Amino acid sequence: MAHKQRKMDIAEAKKLLDKTKTFIFDCDGVIWKGDSLIDGVPETIDMLKSMGKQLFFITNNSTKSRAGYLKKFTSLGLNITAENIFSSSFAAAAYLESIKFDGKVYVVGETGIGEELDLLGIKWSGCEADKGKEVTLSEGLYMDHDKDVSAVIVGFDRHFNYHKIQQATLCIRENPGCLFIATNTDAVTHLTSAQEWAGNGSMVGCIKGSTQQEPIVVGKPSSFMLDYIAEKYSIPKDEICMVGDRLDTDILFGKDGGLSTLLVLSGVTTEDRLLSPKNDIVPDFYTNQLSDLLEAK
Amino acid sequence: MAHKQRKMDIAEAKKLLDKTKTFIFDCDGVIWKGDSLIDGVPETIDMLKSMGKQLFFITNNSTKSRAGYLKKFTSLGLNITAENIFSSSFAAAAYLESIKFDGKVYVVGETGIGEELDLLGIKWSGCEADKGKEVTLSEGLYMDHDKDVSAVIVGFDRHFNYHKIQQATLCIRENPGCLFIATNTDAVTHLTSAQEWAGNGSMVGCIKGSTQQEPIVVGKPSSFMLDYIAEKYSIPKDEICMVGDRLDTDILFGKDGGLSTLLVLSGVTTEDRLLSPKNDIVPDFYTNQLSDLLEAK
Repeated sequence: MAHKQRKMDIAEAKKLLDKTKTFIFDCDGVIWKGDSLIDGVPETIDMLKSMGKQLFFITNNSTKSRAGYLKKFTSLGLNITAENIFSSSFAAAAYLESIKFDGKVYVVGETGIGEELDLLGIKWSGCEADKGKEVTLSEGLYMDHDKDVSAVIVGFDRHFNYHKIQQATLCIRENPGCLFIATNTDAVTHLTSAQEWAGNGSMVGCIKGSTQQEPIVVGKPSSFMLDYIAEKYSIPKDEICMVGDRLDTDILFGKDGGLSTLLVLSGVTTEDRLLSPKNDIVPDFYTNQLSDLLEAK
Repeated sequence: MAHKQRKMDIAEAKKLLDKTKTFIFDCDGVIWKGDSLIDGVPETIDMLKSMGKQLFFITNNSTKSRAGYLKKFTSLGLNITAENIFSSSFAAAAYLESIKFDGKVYVVGETGIGEELDLLGIKWSGCEADKGKEVTLSEGLYMDHDKDVSAVIVGFDRHFNYHKIQQATLCIRENPGCLFIATNTDAVTHLTSAQEWAGNGSMVGCIKGSTQQEPIVVGKPSSFMLDYIAEKYSIPKDEICMVGDRLDTDILFGKDGGLSTLLVLSGVTTEDRLLSPKNDIVPDFYTNQLSDLLEAK
């Protein structure tokens, strides 16, 4: 059952700003909704920067690289750099770097993953090159697979097909020690704001079904991105605040990682749902929207 | 740990033939391997028929209908009828008939499923009609889905694509009470005998990943086909013998269903593996190949 909760007041907001050196923001529902910026976000980000806070923006979307994502931030008038963005495409590449991976990768996904691997000089195949390939049956048909592949990354892919399924499956099943890495396992994704779309949980579920193996997940709710940020920038976790709109991903991710947590009601979670006796995921603070922090300056 | 076991002798084979009214055969590894008939199978089948035994051939393959499968049996010189064949495409249609389904079906899969639905007069869409469809992104893109669909059948599909994933997902998530039926969840399938191919476990895993729902499985190891045969032909289960080459599917399926079980070593299971202390699935009998029954006539 939830504890008694009430919206963050100015004194609490001041306390939060005071103890927090680094903010990690989920994007959809916090910074923007689909293609529309949420009111007051640019001013709040500018204020936090002027206070010397470190800001990171994390997204489970793997279709774009950090450079690709930066274009969206810039087009919305947000003044940040690619280093502040942690997409799950980057997380997959950073994971391989963290384990000193020196093999070749087979990629299921869109362009973001390959772009991030290129930046680290990691060899890869698949992705757009296997778009539209068909498996045409003939007696004794045999699909060759790349024996040099020692990791398969599976990200959201609108051009997912049986050729890719079989390639990924053969690499994982038959190449000794081949890693199976999922950028994320979200059931739904906001491909467009008009409806919910089947997410990378479907591509990953597919490869789980054929390989009977569990993937290494690098996006939320896995702690990889958080650990990476904390270690790379030497930030104590109790000085980090996770800001998100989803209880079961963002807030849980923050709490599991030992961060302080701020839920904003500008996304999918209503105040009724938050305060419902059925909810047992309780953020440290909650407020209507990010720009409420402006009052606490 | 396995019990002490030894190969079936002639006296045991006679006893098995005596008490068994109905044989259910797995096909691959028992009747044929890929496109090659296993030695002595036609003679054994003729003998069993002449003894008045009822014979059923079950396969988790859903790509063909029973009529489509019959062509393979006939081309290999096996003298049976479509009614003796239980493919998982038929099982999916028979399941809907058994629950007096009167809605419309969205089909992921190849031609067999639609052909079996047609024979029962059940309306359906999808399948080959959605082959090659692409989801091209544009702002506010929205995919309409068929609100009349109240069951989605997922079978093996070489033309699996994101359009089908999203259609199936929308029907299951958004149409109230919509059923999610899997013809089977096999990780691998023998598309050709040259290698193992990713099976319908991949297509089903995909839709599980996006809908977060578990399917109703109608193929092995679910008991649906067995219950259907026992009920439709009024056969006591202890008079049925399941013959298969796989411990964890065929033999387990038979044992769970209360049948007697005969493992043949003409498929994937070696005698060493059967007798290994690590194996705890013990068939009532085992023998080299089906034609060993000829000696017991």
